[in-house]
Amino acid sequence: MGRNEVFLEKANGLLPKLRVQRVEPVCAAELCQQNGRTAAKPAGVWQGRTLAKGDSILLDFGNHWVGHVTLRFASVGSHPDAPAWLRVQFAERACELTEDPEAYTGWISKGWIQQEQVHMDVLPAELALPRRYAFRYLRLEVLDVSGKYSLVLTDAWCDATTSADDSALAPYASGDGQLNKLDAIAGRTLRECMQTVFEDGPKRDRRLWLGDLRMQALANYETYRANDLVKACLYLFAGTANEEGRVSACLFLEPEIEADDTFMFDYSLFFAAALRDYMCATGDMDAVRELWPTALRQTELAEADFDANGLVRDRDQMGWCFVDWNLALNKQASAQGITLYCLRAAIELVRALGEPDEVLRESLAKKTAAAKAYLWDKKSRLFVSGAARQVSWASQVWMVLGGAVEGAEAAALLERIAERPDTEAMVTPYMMHNYVDALLAVGERDKALDVLRRYWGGMADEGADTFWELYDPADPDASPYGGTIVNSYCHAWSCAPAYFLRKFYR
Amino acid sequence: MGRNEVFLEKANGLLPKLRVQRVEPVCAAELCQQNGRTAAKPAGVWQGRTLAKGDSILLDFGNHWVGHVTLRFASVGSHPDAPAWLRVQFAERACELTEDPEAYTGWISKGWIQQEQVHMDVLPAELALPRRYAFRYLRLEVLDVSGKYSLVLTDAWCDATTSADDSALAPYASGDGQLNKLDAIAGRTLRECMQTVFEDGPKRDRRLWLGDLRMQALANYETYRANDLVKACLYLFAGTANEEGRVSACLFLEPEIEADDTFMFDYSLFFAAALRDYMCATGDMDAVRELWPTALRQTELAEADFDANGLVRDRDQMGWCFVDWNLALNKQASAQGITLYCLRAAIELVRALGEPDEVLRESLAKKTAAAKAYLWDKKSRLFVSGAARQVSWASQVWMVLGGAVEGAEAAALLERIAERPDTEAMVTPYMMHNYVDALLAVGERDKALDVLRRYWGGMADEGADTFWELYDPADPDASPYGGTIVNSYCHAWSCAPAYFLRKFYR
Repeated sequence: MGRNEVFLEKANGLLPKLRVQRVEPVCAAELCQQNGRTAAKPAGVWQGRTLAKGDSILLDFGNHWVGHVTLRFASVGSHPDAPAWLRVQFAERACELTEDPEAYTGWISKGWIQQEQVHMDVLPAELALPRRYAFRYLRLEVLDVSGKYSLVLTDAWCDATTSADDSALAPYASGDGQLNKLDAIAGRTLRECMQTVFEDGPKRDRRLWLGDLRMQALANYETYRANDLVKACLYLFAGTANEEGRVSACLFLEPEIEADDTFMFDYSLFFAAALRDYMCATGDMDAVRELWPTALRQTELAEADFDANGLVRDRDQMGWCFVDWNLALNKQASAQGITLYCLRAAIELVRALGEPDEVLRESLAKKTAAAKAYLWDKKSRLFVSGAARQVSWASQVWMVLGGAVEGAEAAALLERIAERPDTEAMVTPYMMHNYVDALLAVGERDKALDVLRRYWGGMADEGADTFWELYDPADPDASPYGGTIVNSYCHAWSCAPAYFLRKFYR
Repeated sequence: MGRNEVFLEKANGLLPKLRVQRVEPVCAAELCQQNGRTAAKPAGVWQGRTLAKGDSILLDFGNHWVGHVTLRFASVGSHPDAPAWLRVQFAERACELTEDPEAYTGWISKGWIQQEQVHMDVLPAELALPRRYAFRYLRLEVLDVSGKYSLVLTDAWCDATTSADDSALAPYASGDGQLNKLDAIAGRTLRECMQTVFEDGPKRDRRLWLGDLRMQALANYETYRANDLVKACLYLFAGTANEEGRVSACLFLEPEIEADDTFMFDYSLFFAAALRDYMCATGDMDAVRELWPTALRQTELAEADFDANGLVRDRDQMGWCFVDWNLALNKQASAQGITLYCLRAAIELVRALGEPDEVLRESLAKKTAAAKAYLWDKKSRLFVSGAARQVSWASQVWMVLGGAVEGAEAAALLERIAERPDTEAMVTPYMMHNYVDALLAVGERDKALDVLRRYWGGMADEGADTFWELYDPADPDASPYGGTIVNSYCHAWSCAPAYFLRKFYR
């Protein structure tokens, strides 16, 4: 256990080269109000636009892109006699542009705000911004030039990158316009997050998270089929496990591959689920054989968090288990359900390897029994979580996915929670993915499709080019971070429609 | 006339290579109050300083430098999980650091404010700032990192440039500590302005101005003796004259050599004076012969500004003739005096070339007579300027330098103006240079030295590393631009002490 250089070398050999596509703005744009919210509408030609002090221009690149931007400027008037000073701001959604970056005081780092201030001492100039951005809109503001000259924007382009091969995208056409649209947006979301690794979001955090990887991989098997990229990511996690063999919740790629010091109960366990999914998609048993000890180790390490009865211990510690971005959510029952789910994945793996599964089956049985014995509330006929016996959607969803309840009983459970608006809600597309998965697991195909249509369809109706990190249908411009300028509006854990529609609704 | 590519090629062949010297901060510093004004004092070791969100550090590079700065950062804590966002600000004087760049609303371009905002996505990082700065102090402020890590400043240096050869600097030691200090500061000022051309100020405007060049050349002949650099600059002006042969007030070097569309009556005429000075310093008659037509042409073009009596026409147009930064100053009498001064220089040149001087002598005589006839106020026994018969220091100084009055009469004139505090004052070291020159012209060596000691000594007492663009002894932190952050505190037209002390007080 611990860092495994052989695994890391194998991963490095599998990491893809980025594909670069040069794209230009499709038009200038201006902000407007649509249905009470900020949107952008075309505003003429951008090329050759003259910009004096205080002027700004909004460029619409027509779709979501990830890449490096170059702007070329000339000048009109006298020879420039003072440096030009610009602010450049990038936005995935138009609403971000209504916020003042200087005024942001939320708890997340302001370093994430996609803006730069730059000077140009000599004109004409080619301003090749050194950083990568994720955006559709680029706003350029002339903070100052001088009275003797103005800038002219002559060229603008983005060298957009992805490791996804557009020509490899499996076709999808359902005959239903909305579903086609949801699939297309989800596919775009996945594509934009497919860089050197599967990033959670190309704007933020730009990192490989295990929980996100599981969902990206599922969508990938149905779309771009970049299976070596999944394989590389699995080897990266296995190769950076800590001394006791625990895989981290996320990895940094630069300056060199390194695991974050963030460990989460559920994310570590999901290694087994992601490996099982990889096996089912590829049949690559050599990789499964090599990575199986890492998957098994996560289930072993989880044991320490269980009491003698097989019940996971609740914890106060913020973030010990992720589940969802609902900060009021008690995670105990979800953690129990996730354990069951991942034990089942581990059992599939070990059986495929032809090795004995008794230990895992016993563990699954004991923990399933504990879930029913200690987390089931007979009165409400719902699973409860924590000392306060909190009722949440997440608890029911994970107990269903973990098989603590099955069949009609499970379907009824999901119906019951849907009739309880007073309980802790699901707040991310990430958790909504699990809900759809649970509905499909109990045979509720129509309901699952309805969730896709309503929840992801809501984002599509808002004009989403890619699906978002967070979406509250009641308040689409909400941000738990205190500003949409730090929200990620292209977030891989939101690419569920491409997976579900293609796998279950062909 | 017009652009002369042969001249420009000759100039290009003479332009110097920059010398690069790597310098590091001498200490961390902090702002303090000294005699009621902001100064900086040492504050320990800078290397290895840890910087969390909101932290800042002030680096003192020990002297004024011009160059490119590189900063190296590491991190402590967890692996950096968000981009680091920094503000970097450069200052020639500590007082600049008390101003908020965002709050600057003066009329000069904010693009001149020496500050940057930069992001670092990966740590450790080497941040090589792409622009050139003129500074002694560098303030680094962490706008944000994240709660999981802090920055560590591991290295900082400036690749400082000048075309001055320090080893070629002629020695100077007067036995008088103050004079030695004035000479050293003036020499430093000149050195820092000696880049590819003689810049007016390396912070602002970073350009070759003819009026400044004349003074820089004079100091240069006594110090670094980079006479080819003077020659190159003269050829640049001659090579970029406009269609009618007029030389511009200033030149841009980038992206290619180009004259500004700013023409000033006095600056164009000074071409003759600067060429005369170059001839006296070098005896390079080949260059004088080639450049003489350009010098002569400026005197010819000036004729259009004179009436039939040989009196220069006054003009309302702002900036038609520079003279000094006193915006209330009427320029007519100064322009008349400057013409006389430059005609005398032209006569020296034409005689040295062995060519007839009658036309120039007649012009000089007529204009000298006009000065006395129309600009002399018999009652006050001072020269007056413009329809409102304004009395100013500048008018008297230039009439003396132009020889409208000579000997004891001229000395008495300079005494009389000194007793008139109600008249328009001199506000720049540039005009003070001419005043010292006039005092020496009338034999007032002691008074001239006293001006050097009091005026430039005042800046030295303020802790100047280099002499300033503007200095008002009554208010050393004043800025006519609405903020010291856009003042130039290393300005070549202020390097007079090196010239006068070395030439006249050995």
